[in-house]
Amino acid sequence: MKVLVIGTGAVGSFYGSLLARQGVEVSVAARSDYDHVKVHGIDVASDTKLGNYHFRPHAVVRHAAELAEKPDYVLLCIKVVEHADRVGLLKDAVGPDTSIVLVSNGIDIEDEIARAFPNNELISGLAFICVTRTAPGKIWHQAYGRLALGSYPQGLSEKARILCDAFQPSGIACVASEDIVAARWQKCVWNAPFNPLSVLSGGLSTNDILSTQEPFVRAIMEEICLVAEASGHPLPADTVDKNIESTYKMPPYKTSMLLDFEAGRPMETEAILGNAVRAGRRVGVSIPHLESIYALMKLRDSTTTG
Amino acid sequence: MKVLVIGTGAVGSFYGSLLARQGVEVSVAARSDYDHVKVHGIDVASDTKLGNYHFRPHAVVRHAAELAEKPDYVLLCIKVVEHADRVGLLKDAVGPDTSIVLVSNGIDIEDEIARAFPNNELISGLAFICVTRTAPGKIWHQAYGRLALGSYPQGLSEKARILCDAFQPSGIACVASEDIVAARWQKCVWNAPFNPLSVLSGGLSTNDILSTQEPFVRAIMEEICLVAEASGHPLPADTVDKNIESTYKMPPYKTSMLLDFEAGRPMETEAILGNAVRAGRRVGVSIPHLESIYALMKLRDSTTTG
Repeated sequence: MKVLVIGTGAVGSFYGSLLARQGVEVSVAARSDYDHVKVHGIDVASDTKLGNYHFRPHAVVRHAAELAEKPDYVLLCIKVVEHADRVGLLKDAVGPDTSIVLVSNGIDIEDEIARAFPNNELISGLAFICVTRTAPGKIWHQAYGRLALGSYPQGLSEKARILCDAFQPSGIACVASEDIVAARWQKCVWNAPFNPLSVLSGGLSTNDILSTQEPFVRAIMEEICLVAEASGHPLPADTVDKNIESTYKMPPYKTSMLLDFEAGRPMETEAILGNAVRAGRRVGVSIPHLESIYALMKLRDSTTTG
Repeated sequence: MKVLVIGTGAVGSFYGSLLARQGVEVSVAARSDYDHVKVHGIDVASDTKLGNYHFRPHAVVRHAAELAEKPDYVLLCIKVVEHADRVGLLKDAVGPDTSIVLVSNGIDIEDEIARAFPNNELISGLAFICVTRTAPGKIWHQAYGRLALGSYPQGLSEKARILCDAFQPSGIACVASEDIVAARWQKCVWNAPFNPLSVLSGGLSTNDILSTQEPFVRAIMEEICLVAEASGHPLPADTVDKNIESTYKMPPYKTSMLLDFEAGRPMETEAILGNAVRAGRRVGVSIPHLESIYALMKLRDSTTTG
């Protein structure tokens, strides 16, 4: 199995390294970290039982076009933010038999890729993980790691199952999902409140947000459940309660959006929140709390970038 | 007519100076600015036809108890924020015949004072003004200035009318209002969106907020109108349209809450927003946009002060 990982950020480096440790031939396409990764490879420091280990990619390239062969899978592991040219990055990576695997946060992030590559299999993936790139080629895996993969828009192809199985011996679970879009909505229940609120509050942790404004967090989560249901992906009735409960049990956590905001990087506002709002408008569900935090994030974005 | 102004901030200094210029005996109770005002009085620099002038108070005291006589009117001109001990400030200022005049932003700010001084006449006032204290005893009057006064909870007493009349020759209009609580709701239509959004957006002017998120601003304004109506103070049907229109015509404006936030001073979150939200809950009106920005302001407050 030949895999190309596009993006040597935290997520791409981590999941690429897991496959490489199982003997998969994993190459990486790096951008800003190319010089370091080309020479030194990638070091993963994990606080879990994985421990610390080195990941030496099969090939390190700047552009996918430099690879001798097209891969069986290309894992696109970049944030879905403005100016991220996902189609451009994939174009030279994809042969007729290449499966495209998207590992990104958000809602409705697949359609653009499905339309650009109508003849390639599309696998959609979600990472449940705390992992950070601390320096070029340096990855700090703090906790969790479960991956969910499924064919887009639904079902589970043979190749999706093979990829999922390839992760299993790594010690990090990969869950094969017959309805990956529902899984995206499920994850959005958590992301939609905590990511924006961590930024809009001026930097609060998940725990601080929840312990002072639980009803507000619940109201946002409930709107996501309504939109998911009206979009054909009903979530279990206890979804909100379970998310609240598990967040109380987590250590206080800085969201990825807050980390991006503090570092002056683009935020996944559209992928996580904007697309959920647009879905809500499309299906005609009342989502005033989502509309409010979305409007505020757009105002926030304009002071950050304007 | 003897008047005591409590608070030598921008609002108290300005309206006190207007009365003094009409021959009213105006004393002031100053706190942090006492030393300067005692020696130098107050300088008002107005960008309007008022021009620049000096205001020498009849007496400058630290505490109202130092005054030889109880005033006919005490104007309490301080922001209604946490730890502002309004009752304590008024206690030594008030004789049996003293009318208490509150000149402050917000909703439902009178009740605490009415309960603490049940035998004193209570006049409620609103200032529509851009005015800033630039240094101790230095007041910069940028624009506007209209004052609205009325008896609380409604009507217009003889003394309220007399005070109103005393302002008229100053060149700054004072409007006598038979329903000052409705006037508070009217002002809240503008304050409730623009004050919090200027802070939550990270510092946008009224114009930047409105030009990018007008539907959101309208949604907040409409909720205030619904709460006002359900509270017995219906506002004219074109209230929201008129507020939007006039804001587009204003120069880009930094709200008072944003100025407070940037200066690290307490914000009028409860007086302007929290009390409106509580009124909405009390009358059972759906106010999800107000609830959202209130929850976010509370989260914001906790990062500022916590």
